[in-house]
Amino acid sequence: MSLFRRVAVFGVGLIGGSVGSGLKERGLVDEVVGVGRRSESLEAARARGLIDSVSLDPAAAFRGADLVLLAAPVAPVVELLESGLAAVPGRLLVTDACSTKAAVLAAAGKLDPRHSFVGGHPIAGSEQRGSAAADPDLFRDRVTVLTPTRSTSADSLARVRELWAALGSRVVEMDPRVHDRILALTSHLPHLLSVFACLAAAPALEAAGRDFFGSGFRDISRLAAGSDEVWRDIFLTNRDNLVQDLETLVRLVSEWRSVLERGDAAAISAGLKEAALIRSRLLRKERGGASES
Amino acid sequence: MSLFRRVAVFGVGLIGGSVGSGLKERGLVDEVVGVGRRSESLEAARARGLIDSVSLDPAAAFRGADLVLLAAPVAPVVELLESGLAAVPGRLLVTDACSTKAAVLAAAGKLDPRHSFVGGHPIAGSEQRGSAAADPDLFRDRVTVLTPTRSTSADSLARVRELWAALGSRVVEMDPRVHDRILALTSHLPHLLSVFACLAAAPALEAAGRDFFGSGFRDISRLAAGSDEVWRDIFLTNRDNLVQDLETLVRLVSEWRSVLERGDAAAISAGLKEAALIRSRLLRKERGGASES
Repeated sequence: MSLFRRVAVFGVGLIGGSVGSGLKERGLVDEVVGVGRRSESLEAARARGLIDSVSLDPAAAFRGADLVLLAAPVAPVVELLESGLAAVPGRLLVTDACSTKAAVLAAAGKLDPRHSFVGGHPIAGSEQRGSAAADPDLFRDRVTVLTPTRSTSADSLARVRELWAALGSRVVEMDPRVHDRILALTSHLPHLLSVFACLAAAPALEAAGRDFFGSGFRDISRLAAGSDEVWRDIFLTNRDNLVQDLETLVRLVSEWRSVLERGDAAAISAGLKEAALIRSRLLRKERGGASES
Repeated sequence: MSLFRRVAVFGVGLIGGSVGSGLKERGLVDEVVGVGRRSESLEAARARGLIDSVSLDPAAAFRGADLVLLAAPVAPVVELLESGLAAVPGRLLVTDACSTKAAVLAAAGKLDPRHSFVGGHPIAGSEQRGSAAADPDLFRDRVTVLTPTRSTSADSLARVRELWAALGSRVVEMDPRVHDRILALTSHLPHLLSVFACLAAAPALEAAGRDFFGSGFRDISRLAAGSDEVWRDIFLTNRDNLVQDLETLVRLVSEWRSVLERGDAAAISAGLKEAALIRSRLLRKERGGASES
């Protein structure tokens, strides 16, 4: 039996496409409508069977949907929420998949009060772009954070929980500000470090060419290949936390600079061991098994 | 026909094991002797066919070798070179595979003048550890840097060139100080950024658990899982360059902090695009094809 009759997905990229295909492959939805700005990419997603129909008009596509998922970058999601969706009749249940939550929740306050909003963020697949990488199992064994507030109804929250649980995700609830603080450390600062690795190494690319970049550089720079539109919006809407984390980074740089200048082998060794231990604790029960590094 | 009769490999980890198996699989050597500090790991490498015989005594193992490859971390390699190898009879041809070259070349100046030394660094596989990951094709289509000096004979240089070329590597010659400058940007600073990502994120691991770390964090932290012994030595022996690169990092942090604080979307976007462009230039002709990201 279908969980949803008609789901409208605004932004059919990796996340939107994976939700569409995940719902369709599991027989959980009668129809998925993909909404976006470019008909070519929507048609490509339809051709791959990720969505059933396409629309360039959010208000028209959302009409009659029993769930609206906003899976675009933060800025267009905020813009859409700030429009209030007052032109869409009925009572919409709206959720999102944005990587920062405080700005999205603030914008959701502008929604016409007929509609309900539940903030969400599936923690999955940040370095890939586009619906070509969509995977119906992208969310399996991953965590999805929901950020209910005092104005969130229990029914709306339960319905959005059902969505992510049906896709195999473990759902946790969290204050939106706590979410943004944590994700700054686990995702947004790491992304910026990847960008710094690229920007700092540019002179070596000019001078020596790409043969001097090994597989380690390929790993550390992978995040920097992500969508600049998605990440610009994340950085802008989580900038207070990111600035705070840059202060932590400056402190680390200062400590390591001092350790290096005095050639303190024991301190270098201790820092490297600590970092490796943190990573091993992260990977202990990683999906994909022990062989993954 | 064999290229070498007897090759002694000091340090049978990823690099030493890959050279051993690469020479043996191609029929380029009559015997590979593995030399190290722990007989268990040497025996494991012999059991996998990477080497033919094992020794815990460098002087005994090097006797009669027509090539000695030092593939241990920098500190034990420097220590061995500083011993002069005066107790080993005959005229050894010694080369190394260390990731920094200035310190190794300085130590090689202490070698008994009967012996010849050619500094080398195959740029391959830095994030894996141990001979279990050895691959006879590890060096194929990769660059190996050789760092001849005024005291390097043309014959010795040609012989070490033959080694790496036979394993499929492209060989380039470079001043050791230029090598260390470039590798600081392409490998050593990126490694430290990976360490910083782990150290900065530790509070989030405590507070929220590993479910909040996505695949992007797994990529950026992979380098930090490397051997602390190998990397301690690299950092210590390339610390002047690394300190210089930390100054570049501080400048980048300061620029981005200012851009974030004033919410400059255009500048954020430009920086992200620039980093992505640098990465795409690196990967344009990457081994493994266009699908690799």
